[in-house]
Amino acid sequence: MAPLPHPLSALTVEESQAARDAVIAAYPGSVIYFRNIFLREAPKAEVFAFLELEHSGKLTDETPRPPRFAQVWCDVGGQEKKAEYVEAVVDLATHKITATRSHGVGQHASLSVDELREVPDACERSELFQAKLKQFELPPGFEAIVEPWPYGASDHTDDGSRVFQGLVYAVNRKDNGPDSNFYAYPIPLIPVMDARTKEIIRVVEIATGGKDDPIDKVGTRTTNKIIEHCRPAEYCPEKLPQGVRTDLKPLTVIQPEGASFTVTDGNRIDWQKWSMRVTFNPREGAVLHDIRFAGRSIVYRLSMSDMSVPYADPRNPFQRKQAFDFGDGGLGHAVNNLALGCDCLGLIKYFDGLLTEPDGTIETTQNVICLHEQDDGIGWKHTDWRTNRAVVTRRRQLVVQYIITLANYEYAFNFKFDQAGGITIETRATGIVSVVNIDPGKTAPWGNVVSPGALAQNHQHIFAARIDPAIDGMNNTVVQEESLPVPMNPKTNPYGNYYEVAQTVLKKSCGVDLAPERHRVFKVQNRDPSKRNPVSGKPVGYKLAMPATQLLLADKQSIQARRALFAQHHLWVTKYEDDELYVGGRFPMQGMDEIGGVADAVKRGDDVEDEDVVLWAVYGLTHNPRVEDWPVMPVEVLQLHLMPSDFFTQNPAIDVPSNKDLGSQSVAVRTNETNGTNGCSC
Amino acid sequence: MAPLPHPLSALTVEESQAARDAVIAAYPGSVIYFRNIFLREAPKAEVFAFLELEHSGKLTDETPRPPRFAQVWCDVGGQEKKAEYVEAVVDLATHKITATRSHGVGQHASLSVDELREVPDACERSELFQAKLKQFELPPGFEAIVEPWPYGASDHTDDGSRVFQGLVYAVNRKDNGPDSNFYAYPIPLIPVMDARTKEIIRVVEIATGGKDDPIDKVGTRTTNKIIEHCRPAEYCPEKLPQGVRTDLKPLTVIQPEGASFTVTDGNRIDWQKWSMRVTFNPREGAVLHDIRFAGRSIVYRLSMSDMSVPYADPRNPFQRKQAFDFGDGGLGHAVNNLALGCDCLGLIKYFDGLLTEPDGTIETTQNVICLHEQDDGIGWKHTDWRTNRAVVTRRRQLVVQYIITLANYEYAFNFKFDQAGGITIETRATGIVSVVNIDPGKTAPWGNVVSPGALAQNHQHIFAARIDPAIDGMNNTVVQEESLPVPMNPKTNPYGNYYEVAQTVLKKSCGVDLAPERHRVFKVQNRDPSKRNPVSGKPVGYKLAMPATQLLLADKQSIQARRALFAQHHLWVTKYEDDELYVGGRFPMQGMDEIGGVADAVKRGDDVEDEDVVLWAVYGLTHNPRVEDWPVMPVEVLQLHLMPSDFFTQNPAIDVPSNKDLGSQSVAVRTNETNGTNGCSC
Repeated sequence: MAPLPHPLSALTVEESQAARDAVIAAYPGSVIYFRNIFLREAPKAEVFAFLELEHSGKLTDETPRPPRFAQVWCDVGGQEKKAEYVEAVVDLATHKITATRSHGVGQHASLSVDELREVPDACERSELFQAKLKQFELPPGFEAIVEPWPYGASDHTDDGSRVFQGLVYAVNRKDNGPDSNFYAYPIPLIPVMDARTKEIIRVVEIATGGKDDPIDKVGTRTTNKIIEHCRPAEYCPEKLPQGVRTDLKPLTVIQPEGASFTVTDGNRIDWQKWSMRVTFNPREGAVLHDIRFAGRSIVYRLSMSDMSVPYADPRNPFQRKQAFDFGDGGLGHAVNNLALGCDCLGLIKYFDGLLTEPDGTIETTQNVICLHEQDDGIGWKHTDWRTNRAVVTRRRQLVVQYIITLANYEYAFNFKFDQAGGITIETRATGIVSVVNIDPGKTAPWGNVVSPGALAQNHQHIFAARIDPAIDGMNNTVVQEESLPVPMNPKTNPYGNYYEVAQTVLKKSCGVDLAPERHRVFKVQNRDPSKRNPVSGKPVGYKLAMPATQLLLADKQSIQARRALFAQHHLWVTKYEDDELYVGGRFPMQGMDEIGGVADAVKRGDDVEDEDVVLWAVYGLTHNPRVEDWPVMPVEVLQLHLMPSDFFTQNPAIDVPSNKDLGSQSVAVRTNETNGTNGCSC
Repeated sequence: MAPLPHPLSALTVEESQAARDAVIAAYPGSVIYFRNIFLREAPKAEVFAFLELEHSGKLTDETPRPPRFAQVWCDVGGQEKKAEYVEAVVDLATHKITATRSHGVGQHASLSVDELREVPDACERSELFQAKLKQFELPPGFEAIVEPWPYGASDHTDDGSRVFQGLVYAVNRKDNGPDSNFYAYPIPLIPVMDARTKEIIRVVEIATGGKDDPIDKVGTRTTNKIIEHCRPAEYCPEKLPQGVRTDLKPLTVIQPEGASFTVTDGNRIDWQKWSMRVTFNPREGAVLHDIRFAGRSIVYRLSMSDMSVPYADPRNPFQRKQAFDFGDGGLGHAVNNLALGCDCLGLIKYFDGLLTEPDGTIETTQNVICLHEQDDGIGWKHTDWRTNRAVVTRRRQLVVQYIITLANYEYAFNFKFDQAGGITIETRATGIVSVVNIDPGKTAPWGNVVSPGALAQNHQHIFAARIDPAIDGMNNTVVQEESLPVPMNPKTNPYGNYYEVAQTVLKKSCGVDLAPERHRVFKVQNRDPSKRNPVSGKPVGYKLAMPATQLLLADKQSIQARRALFAQHHLWVTKYEDDELYVGGRFPMQGMDEIGGVADAVKRGDDVEDEDVVLWAVYGLTHNPRVEDWPVMPVEVLQLHLMPSDFFTQNPAIDVPSNKDLGSQSVAVRTNETNGTNGCSC
């Protein structure tokens, strides 16, 4: 019998189908509406023990492999009113369900794209919606287009039933083609659909006023020609009035000898002393496992956990514009199928993923993760000014990337590895800012007019990365380090130039904030005395350097704040628990409160000193849109850095060759061109 | 008669020689020791008027050009004790000196490399130094090597004469070659040389103890075999015990159709709607002038102004380790001659610079500035999930770079321009951390042992960029913008999701700090009502987004703090004055106080609302060395961003073509490879 797949590999098609069949068998006679089927990771203790054997070369065919489990998220009873949401764990050895769970009262299962697609159809069928729409006189050729959104938070006025909302725009597809940018023509209606009945139960008319209009009144319009003052905002190259620029010459990356990385066993990546495994799942996208350098364990699991995008327009119902782009669901189907030469350059390895259709069909989605190398400028350099000998190396990075599209917005998530032992978690926000209709000539304090008639509302993007470290072992300690001034004094600081580097061990699970004025950084260390750095005598560790970005601005009592408690600290430290993966809770969809998220995990009050700890790093953008963000915004880039801090005994990149790049050429031909290589070490 | 050179072009060799000759003629019979000769820019008012004509195409051969001036920094009287330092301004039309200035009491001219080179020779000759050195028993083959440094600050115990200090190391060149890394063998001596007599006037023995040793005592040594416990730390590839890694495959950038930029008129750069001029001078390195986009003025002048590197070891005389790497001088000779394929990839245009030898000889120094394009990942992307049409563009950058080597350290300064109208000021710190000898087995609170016997002292690098904006004209206003929470209230914030974007105009010259928890950013705006953004109705402007890095830690009363007042705020705003360029003052060398720096400029209390303003942006690294920083540290990267904020009427990069990169290939050959282009817009 063939050995089980590696414990840190995604489910195979066969395993997924077996899990599906096990659930169907467990609920005879019930229609099952399948949402997601993916790997339920085996208990960490078992897996880590297995990995230690694997990396010490002690693995044999006889070594028992950790068991394989699948999790199946589905509605038992299909689309019926009394259908029950179930998350079943299937043991893939016995094909039996070993555990089930559902969401609590007032919570909802994450959405499926299938559900979203019902909203436009429901609007099409809805007399209520059509009547509301008719009041507006659209220009010839224009028709309404409905953009489905999660409902955001319910409130006490709701009966708690599962609903979706839609943002409405207008488009002239006949004249402008199927890809015309409809966001330039916002229509002030928000239909709300009951997810079970597929009926539009309510259509909210939204205000189109500005700063001098009362926020509690809708009616400021003086005309029903609601998009008369709007203007086209095409972004597809063939639709640009000015066409595309012609003075940009090609810049091509070639790797004549191939890539420096290898991918083996389906998902194991080896590159420049790094090794790791990558899997794809529909809730988190790309997940990295068992990240090691020269065989030494650094991170057990690295992923994006969730994010929240609250909007700041105070007018009802915009408090409901608050997407949890991972936790609301649909991320799996939102992941882009990446394209050669577009999303990255050079030699690219693509990874596919598995998605589940409502009927349980397992589908392969291609190119959802890409892997490539890139040059990131000078890596290190020194010139001895006496001899003029310069040694300079380039900084090569390995990039694992996935990109998601959620309605108007795009996010690119990159995990970057460098030769100096550093890991960069990079997030790029792009896409189209969310706009609503505004009357001609008006401005508003809660947004910026980025195109005539189109008000881009102020909002925040708060991201959370989950870092499950394993610095030379599972038991680690998080230390807060600050550099602090010391008053001049004869005993310790006679000349006033001394400053103190102060360390505080985080002993209990907690949420802490950055303090750049104190140069506060967090180190994850292995404090086992037998594992100290032989050179410095200090504990081996990694430093987490984060940007001190603004946290959630919404009032603490607001529903927006209550359902995103994770967005109220920069770093959370908890004690590891199996399957505790989602910073905002397992069921943020339509919930009024964060339940079972990182704040609840901290409430356990676990000891986290010399324990199996997890770090939840929170960062974000306060995005008050610029006109330059329209029609598609230039990327906004955020980076977190995990860097070795006395983990190694020297710069791990010291042996990077300093060969010059032979493709490089000098632009101007000069007689002394040979001087072009002055000071080059090669 | 040929027209004068462009007012924003560096001096020609002929102009430099003419300036030198004018000074020689002005001081008949005096020996002149030349330090620097370079452009003294014509008054801004004249130049800006000229530029407006130039960019509106109204320039003719008859248009009067702004006058050309040179500044000559020299010692009249050569090396004599009573020589006088003079900075003369020479009118290149009349060849007459129109103004002179010197430094104040207790101040000193910036150093020349020539002076530095005297220190090792003086030690060689010094019986005092040789006697001190002899007490140490060096291993066979090792000899002392003296690394000259500026003295840092004098103090009341000095007589104020011009002095230099040296750090002392040992090296075995015979066995290990001329490029052996001597920093691994620190010798605890600091010789001090009188710059006039070229004599070692004192040799300080420095402590080698650790945390349990009194900081006011030197003697903790139990042996004179002072480097017995040190270990080699070679970084040159041929010297690495393990050799260089062999598994890194080439990654080459090719631009088959050439570069997208043009360089005309010697120093004018045009690229992707940007235009600017670049000059080189020995005090600031690369300076960018007249930065425009599509002809609209954005920045009049952009440069690195100065930096300070204070060390935090409290033991005498380490309070004197505080380099001002620009203001102390010698930057001109410290600038690297850049190498093809090493310092950047692809098609590179190099610019040379002019330096002055002590005897007045004008020398060309090659490749001191490089210009190239690079790919910076995805620029913007949007996918319409209904049609699956993806449009994705790459983000191309134009990079102007120079790199300086100051003894052990390297800094790469990059000015990066992107197609979305953004300017990034990037600083990369690399090179070798400064180490001192420490007894075997000891550690210290003011540093980290990065190699046996080598203690890397904690220190800061505080940089200041000078931004002289001209947003659609010379008169601009700096606005502080914050995003602030608003308590839930029925009138303006009924659901608690609203936050306020508050703006404060900076009306008087000032120093202000960042506050990331308030998302504090600074906007430079042109508030002329006739120049408002036609879409948003807001003033046109640029936003300065800076990292809130830690400011100077030294006690405010310390000499380190007094001489670097600029390092005590993140942003200074002053009213423009001709030739006011140096944030730390014109003569920081050996000074006890910052004189004539930005703090003094602010003291004028000028109005800065709707005036010709200058921004001084301060940022830095608190560098508590890691073992991984040894022997050459991986780059630490810092970035400031200047981005348009309602300056344009849409994303200026919207017309960037979304062609796929034809050099890109998929790593694994797969039967469904054609899917590799799914969703690609080309």
